[in-house]
Amino acid sequence: MTYLEEIAKRAKEASAVLAVKTAMEKNAALLKMADRLEERASEILEWNGKDLEMAKEQGVSGAILDRLTLTEARIIEIADGLRKIVDLRDPVGEIVDGWTLPNGLYIQKVRVPMGVVGIIYEARPNVTVDAAGLCLKSGNAVILRGSSSAINSNRVLTDVIAGAACDSGLPAGTVQLVESTDRDSARQLMKMHGYIDVLIPRGGAELIKTVVENSNVPVIETGIGNCHVYVDGCADIDMAVEITVNSKTDRPGVCNACETLLVAEGLARDFLMRVRGALEEKGVELRGCEKTRDVLDGISEATEDDWYAEYLDLILAVKVVDDVNEAIAHINKYGSGHSECIVTNDYENSRKFTSGIDSSTVYVNASTRFTDGGQFGMGAEIGISTQKLHARGPMSLPELTTTKFVVLGEGQVR
Amino acid sequence: MTYLEEIAKRAKEASAVLAVKTAMEKNAALLKMADRLEERASEILEWNGKDLEMAKEQGVSGAILDRLTLTEARIIEIADGLRKIVDLRDPVGEIVDGWTLPNGLYIQKVRVPMGVVGIIYEARPNVTVDAAGLCLKSGNAVILRGSSSAINSNRVLTDVIAGAACDSGLPAGTVQLVESTDRDSARQLMKMHGYIDVLIPRGGAELIKTVVENSNVPVIETGIGNCHVYVDGCADIDMAVEITVNSKTDRPGVCNACETLLVAEGLARDFLMRVRGALEEKGVELRGCEKTRDVLDGISEATEDDWYAEYLDLILAVKVVDDVNEAIAHINKYGSGHSECIVTNDYENSRKFTSGIDSSTVYVNASTRFTDGGQFGMGAEIGISTQKLHARGPMSLPELTTTKFVVLGEGQVR
Repeated sequence: MTYLEEIAKRAKEASAVLAVKTAMEKNAALLKMADRLEERASEILEWNGKDLEMAKEQGVSGAILDRLTLTEARIIEIADGLRKIVDLRDPVGEIVDGWTLPNGLYIQKVRVPMGVVGIIYEARPNVTVDAAGLCLKSGNAVILRGSSSAINSNRVLTDVIAGAACDSGLPAGTVQLVESTDRDSARQLMKMHGYIDVLIPRGGAELIKTVVENSNVPVIETGIGNCHVYVDGCADIDMAVEITVNSKTDRPGVCNACETLLVAEGLARDFLMRVRGALEEKGVELRGCEKTRDVLDGISEATEDDWYAEYLDLILAVKVVDDVNEAIAHINKYGSGHSECIVTNDYENSRKFTSGIDSSTVYVNASTRFTDGGQFGMGAEIGISTQKLHARGPMSLPELTTTKFVVLGEGQVR
Repeated sequence: MTYLEEIAKRAKEASAVLAVKTAMEKNAALLKMADRLEERASEILEWNGKDLEMAKEQGVSGAILDRLTLTEARIIEIADGLRKIVDLRDPVGEIVDGWTLPNGLYIQKVRVPMGVVGIIYEARPNVTVDAAGLCLKSGNAVILRGSSSAINSNRVLTDVIAGAACDSGLPAGTVQLVESTDRDSARQLMKMHGYIDVLIPRGGAELIKTVVENSNVPVIETGIGNCHVYVDGCADIDMAVEITVNSKTDRPGVCNACETLLVAEGLARDFLMRVRGALEEKGVELRGCEKTRDVLDGISEATEDDWYAEYLDLILAVKVVDDVNEAIAHINKYGSGHSECIVTNDYENSRKFTSGIDSSTVYVNASTRFTDGGQFGMGAEIGISTQKLHARGPMSLPELTTTKFVVLGEGQVR
């Protein structure tokens, strides 16, 4: 049996035990995990330091280095994240539907854990703890496969939380880290149909694509966001400027940031003149279609690639469209199905947009930046699904479960 | 652009139109499809005759030939199936959840079509119409890829129903058949991520496995059923015999038929002596573990392969187990996650079984034969999912949809 098969087998065995644990038992483990993280903070920081050194030697840049960095404050934040999961309602056992058949059979559709969840992720060591906490609360065993750049941090974090889980009476396979971080270990995980029930990749477009193309385990695609703001012909210009600037610049490196701005022709001149200053003040580079460049002197030309681009940077593609119909067609063609916004005061256009757009989240008059489990009031988030199967949009505890039918009878046969 | 890319592109374009069709428009098309099937029955039978001739030449056996055969009565039945779909509630537009955030954002989680559904199926031409009807009602475009043995029947059926859909004002890509039935066309379909939103294989274990292993399109696995009946120590023996016989023999060739019988040691002698006669009367061959063979003289030995087997035939593997715990462990190890039954009058054991078994449907004191969309009162069935992602158990219209978040604001930003 290979190293990964052993991990998978242990996880599968653990999942059977976890499936019938009560919320009280799972919460006790989560609290112990949180306390231990704080108790062993200096040890964690020491190992994190090794990852940081390695990264600096390799000349890793500021933003990525920042994501990799743990501090005492960040560890307390991560521990508090686990404590917040304790407060969330246990999704397991929820009866989501139920009815009695004419023959007396009593059918209940009950929420149960997935079983074994695999997470393949990049850089951020906080994902190790967040993902483990959410999987545990939803009754799943988790297999974590982080990147080599965070291996020392991930190893000590997993040691701390898996130990705490074990000391709380949970089985050994509850939380496991795949310590080999070569490509082969990821590819092996993708072939573990029958052991792993769902694989969630969290990271860049390249990672997601590799997992989707190579996995025989069911996958939930997350977090590729080519999001749009469309400013309709009768939009309030002040509101449109504010929403555009917020969607683009509040945090340009995340998946719910706006990447393309569409403007209805009738409002193009007035709005583009206004929004240009507000965006350039924040350091945003504009790339426009021909009509945009007729209004905005000196900005560079947007090519076909720009309409597809997820910049994750202070760049914004701008296109003038005829109307809401062209906006919808553009978004459905070039978008990634994440989050789109229409700014309008036209009732019919708002309805056309919300029904015509094929994305996880569609906004009328609000920033795309709200697409987030925390912002949506879900309490926590395991990722944002941009696929249609199983879950779409921000995912929290219920999205880490499946259902089963429990049918109670008195001897019924067909 | 290849033949299949053209089909996929047409389906994708159609899906955008279908997504916003009202139930009235979709129902009108379904009724026209039903009428046309009856009007063109003799033409359909003629083409079906060609498939039957071909099958007979190839020496195809009785049961498969029977499934391939259409008659005037069967065509009326298929048309009535479409009329029943008209009566089902349109799942599209259902608001499944909704809330208002503290900042005033009003969130609705709305049911919307998947988009493009691909069905890869074997033999039965009725699937062509059933699947198309369910996909249409749920607002999806469908790409049908049947087997070569039914190509003439599938071609004429698709011609009839796609024509009716078109004449009802629905787009050309609403219902399409892939007319090339070689392996390559199936493999190409499995690689159409971005065009096809979900692929549902319907057929034997080999087909399902091929699709799961080769598809980069999300897949819903259906219909592999190694189902179990477990007779607990304090079961009512009459009830246990009746449920066992019904689960095994009512229709042995379908996925919800029982394949392995487990018996608690305490009741083994009394029960096995009773059930043997009832089963053998129906022509069932028994294969037993050592303890079973101690009680039942002359039956053959069950090997490890038998515990994994989906016979789809009048064969039943029989094993004596210590108690409910061993029964659960056996089922979770060897089962396919379809349907399992405990016959018991013990409260605690019934609870252990329903919570411990990791299958789509768990019965207490009822035949496994009830796992079926029609029996469950869902009105119609596109298949029975044995995976955990997206849908589990019998799938009907809601399982052919996804959701999106519609968020209404008044200018909110973060």
